[in-house]
Amino acid sequence: MPVQMQLSRIIMSEISDEQYIFLKEVDGNRTFPIVIGAFEAQSIYRAVRNVSLPRPMTHDLIINIFHELQVEPQDILINELRNHTYFARLRVRHNGSLVEIDARPSDAIAVAVRYNPPLPIYVAEEVLAEALGG
Amino acid sequence: MPVQMQLSRIIMSEISDEQYIFLKEVDGNRTFPIVIGAFEAQSIYRAVRNVSLPRPMTHDLIINIFHELQVEPQDILINELRNHTYFARLRVRHNGSLVEIDARPSDAIAVAVRYNPPLPIYVAEEVLAEALGG
Repeated sequence: MPVQMQLSRIIMSEISDEQYIFLKEVDGNRTFPIVIGAFEAQSIYRAVRNVSLPRPMTHDLIINIFHELQVEPQDILINELRNHTYFARLRVRHNGSLVEIDARPSDAIAVAVRYNPPLPIYVAEEVLAEALGG
Repeated sequence: MPVQMQLSRIIMSEISDEQYIFLKEVDGNRTFPIVIGAFEAQSIYRAVRNVSLPRPMTHDLIINIFHELQVEPQDILINELRNHTYFARLRVRHNGSLVEIDARPSDAIAVAVRYNPPLPIYVAEEVLAEALGG
């Protein structure tokens, strides 16, 4: 069973290309970090802080695409950890079907936090166990 | 009538946040620059140079979304210049209809150059005239 988690912290450093986001269990205390890029971290930060810019940034464009194509985003699932890299699926409903789109967790989360309420974030139990060093 | 143009140069500076791309007329010599962000410039550069990364970057995710949703991108149109900002439309065919999605030219071009052949890039005649100082 995937575990529902939420974005709990964003840690941005100006002297490094690697930024961190932390996910925390919704019904528990387990938490783990994911290393992401600066562009994606800024994009997530802006969405969380409701900073709106005059023109759509790249993740906003994805929201525009879903809106114009009448795609209903459902949730995101971080379903794999391989060679220190997390893999995610952006899951959307379209024409009555569930469609899963391969994405990096950073992009998937940047999309998730642009909805109100944010799209649910799930992490596969085995990925969570591995992230926690289990 | 929109004028078909193509990406002719990408100029990236490490000491500035502002990068430049140049569009040049396909059937003529008119050319003009657009100032874009570093992330978008790198993304366009990678696509033009066929640099492929192990995981989908943000513009690659847009391509994945179109693929999974059976959306057929048609072209991009730079249709407005307002307060020194260019506006574009990413035009796609979906379920038999033409859908136009509001985008920054940098994102639209980053998508366009990920197809082979690249999606055609059109610029409205009045935008081109204004870009050229006319």
